[in-house]
Parts: sequence; structure tokens; C-alpha cells
Amino acid sequence: MKSPAGGITRYSRYFIRTRREDPGDAEIPSHKLLLKGGFVRQVSAGIFDYTPIAFRVITKIMVIIREEMNRIGGQELLMPVFNPASLWIETGRYQAMGPELIRMKDRRGSDMCLAMTNEETVTDLARSFVSSYRDLPFMLYHIQTKIRDEARPRGGLVRVREFLMKDAYSFHPNVEDLIGYYDGIYNAYIRTFLRMGIPSIPVEADTGAIGGTNSHEFILPTPSGEDTFARCTSCDFAANVERAAVVLEKTEPAGNCPPLEEVHTPSIKTIGDLTAFFGIDKTGFLKAVAYEADGNIVIVFINGGYEVNEVKLKNSLGASELSVAESGRLVGAGIVPGYISPRVASLPKVTVIFDNTVLSSQSYVIGGDKEDYHMKNAVLGRDIVITKTVDVATIREGDACPNCKGQTITLSRGIELGHTFQLGTKYSESMGLTYLNSESAENLVVMGCYGIGVERAMASIIEAHHDDKGIIWPVTVAPFDIALLALGSDAEVTNAAEKIAESLAIGCDVLFDDRAESAGVKFADADLLGVPLRVVVSKKLVGKGEVEFRVRRTGEVFVVPGDEALAKARSLLESLSKQEGVRIDEN
Amino acid sequence: MKSPAGGITRYSRYFIRTRREDPGDAEIPSHKLLLKGGFVRQVSAGIFDYTPIAFRVITKIMVIIREEMNRIGGQELLMPVFNPASLWIETGRYQAMGPELIRMKDRRGSDMCLAMTNEETVTDLARSFVSSYRDLPFMLYHIQTKIRDEARPRGGLVRVREFLMKDAYSFHPNVEDLIGYYDGIYNAYIRTFLRMGIPSIPVEADTGAIGGTNSHEFILPTPSGEDTFARCTSCDFAANVERAAVVLEKTEPAGNCPPLEEVHTPSIKTIGDLTAFFGIDKTGFLKAVAYEADGNIVIVFINGGYEVNEVKLKNSLGASELSVAESGRLVGAGIVPGYISPRVASLPKVTVIFDNTVLSSQSYVIGGDKEDYHMKNAVLGRDIVITKTVDVATIREGDACPNCKGQTITLSRGIELGHTFQLGTKYSESMGLTYLNSESAENLVVMGCYGIGVERAMASIIEAHHDDKGIIWPVTVAPFDIALLALGSDAEVTNAAEKIAESLAIGCDVLFDDRAESAGVKFADADLLGVPLRVVVSKKLVGKGEVEFRVRRTGEVFVVPGDEALAKARSLLESLSKQEGVRIDEN
Repeated sequence: MKSPAGGITRYSRYFIRTRREDPGDAEIPSHKLLLKGGFVRQVSAGIFDYTPIAFRVITKIMVIIREEMNRIGGQELLMPVFNPASLWIETGRYQAMGPELIRMKDRRGSDMCLAMTNEETVTDLARSFVSSYRDLPFMLYHIQTKIRDEARPRGGLVRVREFLMKDAYSFHPNVEDLIGYYDGIYNAYIRTFLRMGIPSIPVEADTGAIGGTNSHEFILPTPSGEDTFARCTSCDFAANVERAAVVLEKTEPAGNCPPLEEVHTPSIKTIGDLTAFFGIDKTGFLKAVAYEADGNIVIVFINGGYEVNEVKLKNSLGASELSVAESGRLVGAGIVPGYISPRVASLPKVTVIFDNTVLSSQSYVIGGDKEDYHMKNAVLGRDIVITKTVDVATIREGDACPNCKGQTITLSRGIELGHTFQLGTKYSESMGLTYLNSESAENLVVMGCYGIGVERAMASIIEAHHDDKGIIWPVTVAPFDIALLALGSDAEVTNAAEKIAESLAIGCDVLFDDRAESAGVKFADADLLGVPLRVVVSKKLVGKGEVEFRVRRTGEVFVVPGDEALAKARSLLESLSKQEGVRIDEN
Repeated sequence: MKSPAGGITRYSRYFIRTRREDPGDAEIPSHKLLLKGGFVRQVSAGIFDYTPIAFRVITKIMVIIREEMNRIGGQELLMPVFNPASLWIETGRYQAMGPELIRMKDRRGSDMCLAMTNEETVTDLARSFVSSYRDLPFMLYHIQTKIRDEARPRGGLVRVREFLMKDAYSFHPNVEDLIGYYDGIYNAYIRTFLRMGIPSIPVEADTGAIGGTNSHEFILPTPSGEDTFARCTSCDFAANVERAAVVLEKTEPAGNCPPLEEVHTPSIKTIGDLTAFFGIDKTGFLKAVAYEADGNIVIVFINGGYEVNEVKLKNSLGASELSVAESGRLVGAGIVPGYISPRVASLPKVTVIFDNTVLSSQSYVIGGDKEDYHMKNAVLGRDIVITKTVDVATIREGDACPNCKGQTITLSRGIELGHTFQLGTKYSESMGLTYLNSESAENLVVMGCYGIGVERAMASIIEAHHDDKGIIWPVTVAPFDIALLALGSDAEVTNAAEKIAESLAIGCDVLFDDRAESAGVKFADADLLGVPLRVVVSKKLVGKGEVEFRVRRTGEVFVVPGDEALAKARSLLESLSKQEGVRIDEN
């Protein structure tokens, strides 16, 4: 899918409708601008139509993705959305996946599901094609509709229920080969997003439901993002908070601590009230957080200065479902919610977990195991017995960097643009994807997988490129190169505009605003739609044989002779690309 | 998506696996060759993976479709697969569609379905964008995954459960405008299929579940097709048998017919036995066929020389479900299966229908309404009272042409490549898609819709272009232009082949067979995969600086100097295109 070689699209005949008013339900800039510009229309929660102008952007995004995947040897194919459950049962994900995976029976009563990712289908295909080490390595990808029944679709195109995903899968004889190839993917991802105008940050990430050993998310830093990631200001460490390890501060030795003492704390419930009452800060409290994990009660004890990270906890437990425990359930198990001490470990059917951060203090205020009571001077080793701790805390601003150990962690929000995984043998093992090596010994194929959401990329580009008037598309993904505005209904202007349109269309995609609308409306729409160059043909200029150029990104204005318009357009687009820093020469 | 500008694909690194043996389960040539060539792999009944070589063909097919749609002003967009049931409830199709429409609840309990076509979504989108006659006409299309839970997936890619469909929708101020545009669509369809190398025949067709007034199917005539269509040998009439009207032969006047007489016909059950027993041919019998239509018993009487066409019957009844009646159900209603006479019209809850063909004779043998009895000399008007007849018969070879009235009908089988519909106001009425005309009066938008199945087109191309050795792709849709074969492991051959590959890749897509396989294997694979040109570099020729060309379609062989290979390839591809008669100059 090459970018169009140029052409004229007449606004008056185009299926487009912009709005002047701000949509009330839009949460983030991209959502607002996509709705105002008529790029998308919501069909149902998290389900959208993409109108012709949006599909032009989507097409250009797909071209960039395809070129970068092909450059690293990717082979494009097409795998189905409608999947037999049997494949997902083989890997255990038919059960393990939550309600995001849509399951149904077909008319013959067979269990089916809608592929929200294609590890199962691609491994199934590969096992029918691969037999020898000579068949390896290779990388397959497709750009295919994905349907995920998200609990909370939000952020416009950021979290939706149906989208196009480029998912790529690589197959290797061993881990070393995967790791070597993974570097190439990593670079291809940086390059892919750069070409779209997105300066992405690769961060270490949780592997989640996909699995595997290492993975990276490619993040666009933006306050409207729903992911939080930690970066070090003094080294190159970057990781999603779901993954970033919390490194312990030095603990003080216990000293000669007074004995454990019960304290009556009526009506003192919030952490603010408690710190005031006891005269110590949050880190002096042993916080208990109660969960249900796959139906079992799990109590997590963590230093009061930290929060539990539920993704880390879920991974640590190997649980498939995790939720905050209901009060009634706790009471039934003999637990007093709000006043939980480590002594609940002795209750039947209660699992107790200590986070690493518990070790950062030697003495705590803990729950009293009865309503309105706390205990103070609970000393590790003396009053609190810990055999093992795990890392289930969320890293904080100013925490120690897991890499360089400086107190240099900063937190930012961002949108996940892509995710790459070193899968290892998770799928080849469960589905029996093997090959014979040069000594005819059977080995498991080692896999990687690599995803990019197409519509989310479009939204992210807008998050990175907009102002209060509208979108500012980078040249590489702009739906049109030029918005050509004919101002007024004067025949001379109309004729000149037609001629200019024809000449610009040699190599440029022109949105020709030929409507009987005011200059104000046309200017506003051109700005909103974010076309890189605006060319105006007006009564005033046409007499001098001139047209006016305006660069959407910089606001620069140039008046040039009509017969130099094409050359000017080309040079402006070229220099804009360089300025955007996003055009990378092919090959 | 432009066709690639040329490049080299190394067979040794390509994700491809051909088979020597014929697949046992393949029903038709395209299915067999797609499996043998490793183009597709079945994931489940009617669900396939399309491997990289198949995706190259699919890409070229989509390019042709897009170019032809854009040429007639089509605007490409993207609408969702995952649809809220509410839209389908508005048009009544949520109920009316059979189990082909996959329905499910989402995690919030809302009814959803998977779009098997997009009239609902496109009309919903259009009603939010269209307000004035100035917004009309326009045409939107997308190429999107469709999921249809077919009862009997078959014929490889001909009838599947998941496929890519190009569905286009046009919107007009009135019927005249639609009809004018429809001619353009009609021509674009002829042209689209011709460019793929398919000589399609447009035939009048039943409108089925899509609805509307007129529609055409574009058919590839082939014995492996599942559609039957009627053509006239002396005029240009062509129609699907589901649509073709049966024109009555002249009826003989009744004359002085003997009275109705009961005849004992023990053990005489088949039509063959009956014709022998009564000494008359099939047309002398009034055949009764019993159905259940939406739960009601319907008895169709038809001249014994004809068969009931169930699509015509369903349309005539306006029924959404039709099946042959079960014997028990008939007995319960007081009907004697196998011996049904028109007197059953007097039974409660039984509907009786007479086909037009009943009028082609004046006297019949009819059922006796009791086991082992028939009645002869049943005369229309005297013994059989008919107030109305309908056309629910299937046209036969040699029947009268509905157009020119000659006895000139021939029947053929074929594959439906595309289907175009003049929808009229079916969807705009049910979904409230209106516009204000120039007098500010509200009018319904008039619509048309136009589909092409992408994978079915691929299969149809193969049905039209293959021999016993494999596929013969037309140049316009071939996955590669050239199969370059290096024979033997001689360094001189290998080096020469690398050089030839580099030179051919300037403008040609080269599948470079660099495997350590025998010449026989390489020849067989090149033939099977159907690449238009084969270029061989061998020990014998390389000494003379020559290569051998072979044209897959014609078998012609040329030996040319290596440095003329590119020029020769280009001229052969050019002349092949002309020979195939399928390349139409662009604009």
C-alpha cells in the first residue's frame, strides 16, 4: 500500500462533516479532535466507524508498519478472527483469559472464540510447515481486526473493543537467535513510530496474558496516557510500574524497642488520622490489603508508604483473577477489616504475603485484630514473623533506581504504542511446535511476538501533534498534503483554483475546498483537519497570479506565483518532514 | 496498495511448503491447488490461514478492487465487525437472519452480533452525516472481515465462514440517480473481474436477505460452481434460476374430458412407476410438494415436469424460514403424504399454492388423499379450483426465454463473484435516513449496495486458470512475476543467478529458488505455484552467458543473453497481459 501518487479530492463531494462545538463526552485531545474533525463516529462503546479521511491516515500508518516489518524480513499473511476454541484450550488460554475473550458456540455447537491476538493460530500454522532447522528462523505478521471485550473502553481510540492490530511472530532455533532478532525488532519499532512522528520510549514491561520472559512497551509520554512508567534521571532505566522493581532503602537496626502495646483507636480510621494520632509518618504503619485471588483470601502486608501493584501481585501469585476482597468474605473468615494484623496468617484458608518494603522499617503500628484497636511497637522478628518477602509494591517518584541505585526515579504517564515479547517456548511447548536440529534431535522452537495497534497509533500521533485549533498531522501520515481553499465565488478565483489544484495534484494529495462557505469556515476546517499546508486562492492574489501558502505547524506564510506553487509545496513538505524529524530515508 | 515495485524473495527463506500428493478432501480444482501450493491451510471448517504467497495475490486483488471503486468515486472507510444488535433490530434483520448471523452478549449483557454485511452500520453512519440534497450522491466502501456461520462451508474458498468482502454502498436523492450510478457500478464490476482475468457474466439475481428491487450477480461459468443460471442462446437474457421466470407453454383446451376417477395404485410410488402405470409422461401429473414456512404447512402444486424453486417460494411467501415438511406434521394435519390432492386446501391451517406451470395442462392425475390411491381426469376449473397462480418453478434447459420467448434457455453452473443490488429505500426507511430537498421537503435517501468476496475471487481465478500441473496466474494477480531457478550447486551458476536476480528485480517480483533441490522439484514447484515466467540458470547455459525463459501459460521457451533478461521479461509480461486479455490501461 504505497502512499497515493497525488490527486484531487473535492470537499463538496467528500464524505466529511466537521463540528464547531466540542464533543462533551471526549476525555482526551485526540478523542475530541477526531470527533470534531469527523474522523470517527462511535457505533457503540469502544467501537467506531473510521470515515474516509481517517482511513487515509490509517492507510499511511499501515504502509509505514508494513515497510518496517518487511525491511526486517517479515512476511505478511492473514490469519482468521473466528477461531476454534480447541486451539485456545491447547494453550490453556481459553480458560485463563478473562471476559475480554469473546466466546460462543457456532451453529453446530462447537466452541469458538474471537482472536484477540494470534499466538495460537500462528503456532498452529507453523507446526504444520516447520520440520527442520533449515526452516528457521522466520517472521510472520498480519494486520487484522481484533475484538476484545474491554471492561472500560475509554480515551477515544486508546482503549477500544475492536481495532486493527499488526501482530508479528518470529520463530527461532534457540534463545540466542531470538535475542539477536529482538534487537532488530526493537529498532524497527523505534523507527516505525518515529516515521509516524511519535518519539517513543521503550520501557521494560510486564508480560501479562501473553507470557514469556522479557518484554518492552513502546510508550508515548503524555499526561492523557493510561500507563504509568518509571524512568531514571541518571541512567537509561525505564520500566512500566507494573514491572519496575522496588529497591529497598537501608533499614535501621531495631534498637531497644518497647514491648508490643494495644492502643484504643476509636473513630480513627484514615491514614491521616492515624499518623496524627500516633505521631509517626505513613512508613511507620504496616498496611494490610485484602484480596481475593482465584477465590482465595490473600492478605498483603506492605510498608504504609507504598501501594500494592496488582499486576505484580497477580504475577507473584500466578493468579488468573484478582480483586479486592469483599468485607463480608473477610468477616466470615475471622478477619476484622481495617484492623488486620499479621496474626491472621494462623487462620485457615488465609494466605499472607509480605512485600519487600516491609523490611524497610523494624517497628510498626499494626492492626489490633479487633474493631477500634491497633498495636504499636510491633517489631520484625519479635512480634512479626516473616519467612519470605516478595516485590509487589509500586515504585514511587524519587525511589531508588533498580539499575544505578540513585534516588532518581521519576514517574510519567503515557500511551502504550506497541509491545514486544520474548515468548520463549510457552506456545511451542503447549502446542508441540518442534524442529529437528542438524543432529536430527527434536527441539522446541523459540518464539517472539510483537504488536502495534493501528488506531491507537493514530490517536497517539494526535496527542503528540495538535494545538487549540486542531490536529497538526506529520507529513508522513497526513490524510492530504495540501488543503487548497478557493475564497469567494468569483469565476476568476474558481478557474485559477481549478488550475492550481491540477498542478498541485502532480505528486501531492490535495483536499480542494470548493464549497460555497465563508473564508472563516474554510480556514477553521483546514486547521481542524490538520493538513500540513494550506494554499489560498483569493480575489486579491489571483489578479497578481499569486497564491498564499501557510504551514499548519509553524504558521509561516508565503506568497508565491501560481506557476511555482507545486515546487514550493514540494520544498515545504520536504523541509517540514525534516523539521518534524520523522522522515527516515527508506532502506 | 500499489503492486510492489519489484524485489527478490528467496525460496529458501520463504514461509512456503508445497505438497506432491493430492489433498484427499479437496472438492474442486482451486481448493486442491491452493492446498498443494501451500497458499491456504484450513483452521476449522470454512476458516483458513492465507500464507504469504496467497496474501500477495489477495493484495493484488484488493488493489484492483480499490482502483476500480475509486475510479467511480468510491470513498474507502472502515466500519466495524462487532455490532450492537440494536442496529440490526431497527431493520428487522436481527430476527430475520438465520444462524449465519452470529449473535452474542457482551460482558455487560448487551446483545451484539458480527456483521456479515454492513447495510445497518453504513446507514447509521450516513444518517449522522447527511442532511441536505447537497450531501448526495456519494459512495462509500470498505474491505473488511466478514463472519458468516454457513451451514455447509464447501468448495475450498468458495463458501467459507470468514472472508474479506469489499462492500460498497451508494446513496442517492432518487431512484433515477441510483439507476444511472448502477450502470457505472455494473461496468466497474465487469472491468474489475476482467482485470483479474475472470470473464464474468452478469445475470439477474434474487435479492435474498439483502433486499431491494433489482440485483445482478457476476458469475464465473464453471462446472464446479454452486450457482445455476439460465441463459438464452438467441438474446442477451441471463438470470440465476432463483430469479429466472418460467414462461408458460401454450395450454391445450380441455376438450371433453371423462369424469374424475379414483384409481387403486398399490406399491406404485415413484414418478417412474406412475408414468408407466398411467401411460402418460410426467407433465400429466399434478405434483404436490409439502413445506413448512415459518412454522405453517404450505402445499405447493406444480406441473409434474417442473421442480419447485425454494428461493422463489420463500420470496413468494415472504417467509424467513422454509423447509420440507416432516411427514408426522402432515399426518397430524390430516394430510396423507405421497397422495396429496388440492382438496387439502379445505383443511384448517394448510395453505395451498399453485405454480403457474399448473396451467400448462388442463387435466391431471392427482393424489387420492388416501394411501395407495390416485385420481385421474382431474380437470382444471371442474375438479381443481384455482383462483391464483404464482411463479415458484425452476426454469429448465430448453424452456422459453422470458425475454425473447424462444425455446432457447440453457442452464450452466457458475461461481458468484460479486452481487450488486438496487436497494431502494429498504434501509433508509427502517433507519430514518432522510434528506431535505431543494424545497426543504424531507425525502428518503435511495441506496444501492455492491459486494465482492476477495478470497472467492482468488479461488475463481484459479478455476479459470489452471492445468494439470498447477495454477496459471494472470500477470495482474500473480504473486510473483518470475520464478528464477538456479539449477545445481555450481558456484558459477549460483553467482550468475544472483546477478540475474538483481537485474530482474528492477521492476519485477522475483521468487528466487535458491534451494538445494533437484531441477525436477524446482520445475514442479514453479508450475504448481503458477508464476507467469520461469527463468532457468543452468551449468549448460551459464557458460554461454544465457538464461532460459519459459512462459507458464503457453509453454513457449526462449533462450536469451543474461543481460537481456530484464527486457525480455518485461516484454513477455506485457504480451502475456494482452494475450490474457485482462489488462486494461489505467485511466
